[in-house]
Amino acid sequence: MSETEQNQVESNLFPRVRIVLVETTHPGNIGATARAMKNMGLYKLVLVSPHLFPSEKAIWRSASAADVVEGAQVVSSLEEALEGCQLVIGTSARERRIPWPMLEPKSCGEKVFKTQAAGKEVAIVFGREAHGLKNEELQMCHFHVNIPTGKAYSSLNLGMAVQVLTYEILQASIAATDQSDQASQEDDAWDMDYATSDALEHFFVHLESTLVETGFHDPENPRQLMTRLRRMFNRIRMDEMEVNILRGFLTSINHLKAKKPE
Amino acid sequence: MSETEQNQVESNLFPRVRIVLVETTHPGNIGATARAMKNMGLYKLVLVSPHLFPSEKAIWRSASAADVVEGAQVVSSLEEALEGCQLVIGTSARERRIPWPMLEPKSCGEKVFKTQAAGKEVAIVFGREAHGLKNEELQMCHFHVNIPTGKAYSSLNLGMAVQVLTYEILQASIAATDQSDQASQEDDAWDMDYATSDALEHFFVHLESTLVETGFHDPENPRQLMTRLRRMFNRIRMDEMEVNILRGFLTSINHLKAKKPE
Repeated sequence: MSETEQNQVESNLFPRVRIVLVETTHPGNIGATARAMKNMGLYKLVLVSPHLFPSEKAIWRSASAADVVEGAQVVSSLEEALEGCQLVIGTSARERRIPWPMLEPKSCGEKVFKTQAAGKEVAIVFGREAHGLKNEELQMCHFHVNIPTGKAYSSLNLGMAVQVLTYEILQASIAATDQSDQASQEDDAWDMDYATSDALEHFFVHLESTLVETGFHDPENPRQLMTRLRRMFNRIRMDEMEVNILRGFLTSINHLKAKKPE
Repeated sequence: MSETEQNQVESNLFPRVRIVLVETTHPGNIGATARAMKNMGLYKLVLVSPHLFPSEKAIWRSASAADVVEGAQVVSSLEEALEGCQLVIGTSARERRIPWPMLEPKSCGEKVFKTQAAGKEVAIVFGREAHGLKNEELQMCHFHVNIPTGKAYSSLNLGMAVQVLTYEILQASIAATDQSDQASQEDDAWDMDYATSDALEHFFVHLESTLVETGFHDPENPRQLMTRLRRMFNRIRMDEMEVNILRGFLTSINHLKAKKPE
């Protein structure tokens, strides 16, 4: 390991927390994000289909965080970016038609800190500068976080939003080390590992096909059924055994249908 | 008063709080500061001898906060910028040889909020991008504020520092005006009524009989299946529509079974 790498290992306070930027338009915002991250002790940057990357502008704006920019992982889908994550939080500027479990930045920082401290992978997802995250992307998240603003102007610059949320993660970490082992992590109190994002996505695919099979769900006339079910199951973070139980139940329904003559 | 001016009066949440930038080098940072301020409900920007101002770059980076940039007051000394202030807080990156009363960002936000609410003028002073505030400037401040960072990289971008400190002012304001029962607010934010206990019990009975029907659940060998499912669904705290959806799904499974010949 080189000296630089060694340094990075020591100063990477939250190695299990990834910042995910989706389809970023301005490379300057990627650089600003990298600097904000490194200032707060984060290094893991994942870029989903950035418009322009690599970019000199991103390096320039990152100032002394060029290592974070250069170490960024570029992927082509949000699913890929979230692989292995057990907690996914999406940034959402607007009120949605179907409310989702919401966090304030401070409670977001606390949740992220506790979850990564319990050894789990966490992602915070930031959308496009102009349009944020799409509904189907927001529905892949367990929680949404919104940064409160004044009424006149509610849209924060992307890098600024990263700065506020990563600041709150470091704040939570400082508060926790101050109080030392006061609250033994709630995540540790659970008896099973949480399901990963990919396991959950497989479950949702299986659920939807089974809903179609029993005739309950008509994909031609979806009436927000899958949205409501996703919201419901994402409200809790299902553990591995729960997902296995539900998939076993779905499979038993599939067999029922298979045995039925046409 | 024009309509624009009227709007600004209404959305200027902290008219007695001024953000003071000393000898800013990059006009982009002035624009970023203006946007950060307006996002958090602040409008009063004072520039001490900026290197390049007015500037197109500042307007561009401010996005929809051009009014804050254009309304900025340009002065030639920090004394002038602080005229009439009863609380002055200076941002300080480094440990100083002579310790000064220090604030954390959160306590800074609370102090600023309380002081302006008491009708007093407040200034937060930000130094040069490369060198911060000089000792004689820092000594004009009642308090210093430092934004905690990771060890590897402690120097925040100027606009980011403004964002964090103004965010904490708005947070203090929200906490002060909105200490009413948080739990009841969470409940009010949901779009459906929560399901009653009896509706849930009917659901669990229906779920169990259907699990038996598909052959997934053997009541003679229950293996904590219903316990785990109850724990899971109780964690979700289902709303009425969610229970209705799941019961509809169970009924569609029951019909499948009914059609199947023995």
